[in-house]
Amino acid sequence: MKQLEERILRDGKVLPGGILKVDGFLNHRIDPQLLYDMAAELKRLYAGEEINKILTIEASGIAIAALVGYVFGCPLLFAKKSKTSNISDALWSAEVKSFTHGNTNTVVVAKEYLGPGDRVLIVDDFLAHGEALAGLKALCEQAGATVVGAGIAIEKAFQGGGDRLRAAGLRIESLAKIAAMSDESLTFCE
Amino acid sequence: MKQLEERILRDGKVLPGGILKVDGFLNHRIDPQLLYDMAAELKRLYAGEEINKILTIEASGIAIAALVGYVFGCPLLFAKKSKTSNISDALWSAEVKSFTHGNTNTVVVAKEYLGPGDRVLIVDDFLAHGEALAGLKALCEQAGATVVGAGIAIEKAFQGGGDRLRAAGLRIESLAKIAAMSDESLTFCE
Repeated sequence: MKQLEERILRDGKVLPGGILKVDGFLNHRIDPQLLYDMAAELKRLYAGEEINKILTIEASGIAIAALVGYVFGCPLLFAKKSKTSNISDALWSAEVKSFTHGNTNTVVVAKEYLGPGDRVLIVDDFLAHGEALAGLKALCEQAGATVVGAGIAIEKAFQGGGDRLRAAGLRIESLAKIAAMSDESLTFCE
Repeated sequence: MKQLEERILRDGKVLPGGILKVDGFLNHRIDPQLLYDMAAELKRLYAGEEINKILTIEASGIAIAALVGYVFGCPLLFAKKSKTSNISDALWSAEVKSFTHGNTNTVVVAKEYLGPGDRVLIVDDFLAHGEALAGLKALCEQAGATVVGAGIAIEKAFQGGGDRLRAAGLRIESLAKIAAMSDESLTFCE
């Protein structure tokens, strides 16, 4: 998506360690018109798929998912990071490793809000090693829900998570796909 | 706002300890069309105020703020709960006590995204004791930004935070205002 690529080039900052900072428009200060346009593009890409639920993870996926839900006309559900390992019977749960923070979170959703009738689009701001996306997919599988695919704002393709999950059969549409990144340059996939 | 009141009566659950659970439509599974309608109502209430930034707090304020930002045509900024007390010079910070969780969080926003040019609408899902709202107001005051007012989904008026902040001069528009709540009944303010 040209508009997102241009915004990344204009306002994104590359930091050491393969980190791309986009907190000026995507995950701290947020441009809602850009999110709307991204949601409309996902709607076009997933036309005819009869998606009836958007699933994301707190906190930085929520704003995108809210606009995606609005454009798709269906509810969104966000997985919460659980503070306790004492997971109740009323919750689906999965482990999500964070490469950025070097820890593992348990993420949960209420069982009553995700089930076999759901055709789910998983939405997130970033896809890098794919841990969050794999965790959200696992929640859907536990619930018996159908994962139609994923809609990602920015995929760091060079970190391999997207290709690994595609090879396992998951449809992933990333609106900006970064092939390589260094202090001097950032190049998108063809 | 009639639509929100009816939804609370239909889908909300009153739990012991003055807790109102609305995770079926507001802060876990979320109805984005309802959020859009709430945003449009806030736009009507704050017409002519030239608001140019929406400020909220993670995580459950983000979805509402995303739709409010979209309807107002301006960026939103969400305050993050800081894991460390080691706050950098690049951040505005404030303390927010949580009555629900019985702890205190430091919340932060990047200084570069909040400043004297901003006319801010603070948005959140709940207003009870008013701690989150007071903390977000303090961030704006540090930044020299103007707080035009607050837009709240559900005010638990019987917990007093709203009246205390109104008495201190803050304009607060709550879309549903609960006068009293018990296991058997829930009544809205006139």
